[in-house]
Amino acid sequence: MRALKNHPELCAINTATFGFQVPLTLAIEAIAKAGFGGIAPWRREVEGQDVKALARQMRDAGLKVTGYCRSTYIPASTSAQFKENIADNLKALQDAAALGSDAFVFVVGTLANLISARAQVQEGLGLLSQHAENLGVKLALEPLHPVYAADRSCINLVSQALDMCDEIGSPSVSVIIDAYHVWWDPNIERDVVRGGAAKRIQGFHVSDWLLPVTDTLNNRGMMGDGVIDLKSLRAMVEHAGYNGLVEVEIFSSANWWKRPMDETLQVINDRLGETF
Amino acid sequence: MRALKNHPELCAINTATFGFQVPLTLAIEAIAKAGFGGIAPWRREVEGQDVKALARQMRDAGLKVTGYCRSTYIPASTSAQFKENIADNLKALQDAAALGSDAFVFVVGTLANLISARAQVQEGLGLLSQHAENLGVKLALEPLHPVYAADRSCINLVSQALDMCDEIGSPSVSVIIDAYHVWWDPNIERDVVRGGAAKRIQGFHVSDWLLPVTDTLNNRGMMGDGVIDLKSLRAMVEHAGYNGLVEVEIFSSANWWKRPMDETLQVINDRLGETF
Repeated sequence: MRALKNHPELCAINTATFGFQVPLTLAIEAIAKAGFGGIAPWRREVEGQDVKALARQMRDAGLKVTGYCRSTYIPASTSAQFKENIADNLKALQDAAALGSDAFVFVVGTLANLISARAQVQEGLGLLSQHAENLGVKLALEPLHPVYAADRSCINLVSQALDMCDEIGSPSVSVIIDAYHVWWDPNIERDVVRGGAAKRIQGFHVSDWLLPVTDTLNNRGMMGDGVIDLKSLRAMVEHAGYNGLVEVEIFSSANWWKRPMDETLQVINDRLGETF
Repeated sequence: MRALKNHPELCAINTATFGFQVPLTLAIEAIAKAGFGGIAPWRREVEGQDVKALARQMRDAGLKVTGYCRSTYIPASTSAQFKENIADNLKALQDAAALGSDAFVFVVGTLANLISARAQVQEGLGLLSQHAENLGVKLALEPLHPVYAADRSCINLVSQALDMCDEIGSPSVSVIIDAYHVWWDPNIERDVVRGGAAKRIQGFHVSDWLLPVTDTLNNRGMMGDGVIDLKSLRAMVEHAGYNGLVEVEIFSSANWWKRPMDETLQVINDRLGETF
C-alpha cells in the first residue's frame, strides 16, 4: 500500500468537489498549486470552451487527467433517443481524447425496466468501444450505489460491471471503484481482486458516507468524516494492482461546496494517509 | 403465480403500514374486516400488553401471524451489550411464540466495522437458533437495502443472508424477501431460486420505490405508485416455491400514515393482482 501522507501528487481532484463555483481554468491552477497530481473535469466546464487550450493548461500544470465526467445516460424509451445518446457520448469521448484524459466516465442511466436498461447499456458501450480503442481512451463504467438504481444507474455492483466488461470483450472497457458506491458490498474484496486480475480497474474514487443519512445525492463527506474504512479499501484496490491516482470526488451542497477551493484542498492534503 | 385479485386472504398487513396510529386491537379488527389473511404486529404494540389475549384476538379473527417485528440490533461495541441484545431478542422470540407468529423478523443492525458487525450477527443468530427451534418460530433474516448499511443492517443482499443461513446450519434460520430492499439486485432471480430450493424463504414483503428519492426510510410507496416490477418479483418468489402470504409493509410518514386505516386497506384491496 502506498504512503499517501505528504504525497498529494498521488491524488487527483474531481472538480465536482468544488461544486462548480469557479471556471475550470481557476480550478486547474488551484489544484496544481496545492501539489495534486491529477484532475477530473466535467463536460459542463469544457463544452463550448477551447478544449485544446484547456488540455494544454492541464498538461503544462503537470496534471494528469484521470477521467472526463461524464456520459449522457444510455438507456432510452425510443430507439431514436438511444441513438442520440450514443452520438452524444461519441462526441464527448472525442473531447475526452482531446483533453488527454485516460478515461471517459460512464454513469450509465436507468429505466423502470432494469432488464431493458441493462441490455441497452451493454449494447451502447459495445457500440462505443471500438471508437474508444481508436482514440486511446478507456470507457470507465462506474457502478453506482443501489440507492440510484431507479434514477441514475442500472449498474450497481462491481461484479455486475465486470460481467458487462467481459460480455463486451473490448480492452477499452473498464471499471471505476468509488468508495461511496461500493463500501457496503460484502463481495467487494472478491470483486476488486477479480477486476485487478482482469486489468479492468481504471480508477479509485474516495469520499465518505455520512451519518445520519439525509440527502443521498449531494451530502457526501470528506474522507474521515463518515463511516467508510477507506484505508482498507485503498489497500485492497492497490493490492489488486491498481497504481493510478486516488481521485477525490465529494458532492456536498451543504458543506464543502460552500467553502473556498483552497480550504477544501488544504483539508484533503491534511488527511492524506491519515483517513484515506 | 397465484391470482391475487379479490383474494385479500392471500395477503397480510404489517401494522407499520398504519404508522401506529391506533392500538393493535383496532388494527386487528380492521384488517380482518377487510378480508386480509394475516397480520404482522410490532413489539411496540405488544410489549406491556396481555400477549395471550392479543394472540387469541388475532386467532379468533382468522388472521395468521406472518411475522413479529422486530429484533433488537445484534452488533455492539462491548460484549456486555452484545449479550444484552441477545437476551432481549430471546425475550421477544418468546413473545413471538406466544403470539403464534410464524417468524421473528430480524433487522440485524450494523457497526462502522462491517466485518465485526457481520460476525456478531452470525454468532447471535447461532445462539438464538436452538431456542427458535424449540419454540417453533423461524428467525427471519431480512436483508435491507444497501442505503441502510451504515445505520440499520450489515446484511444487504439476499445471497449474503442465505450464506449466513448456510453457515449457521439450523433449519430455524430463514430469509425475508422484501421488494423495496432487493428489487435493484441484478442477482435477485438467482438468489430467490437458491432460497426457494433451500426452503429458506420465510416471507415476501411488498411496497414500492418512489421517485424522486427523498427520505429513504419513511417514504415508501403503495404498490403501483413507484418503479418496482412487483408482479415479476412475486412470480419469481412463487415460482421458487413460496406459498405463504404476501405481506404489505409501507413506511410512509408523509402520505399513508396520515390516512385512515380503512382507506389504506381499501386501496391495497383495489390493487391486489393489478399492481402486485
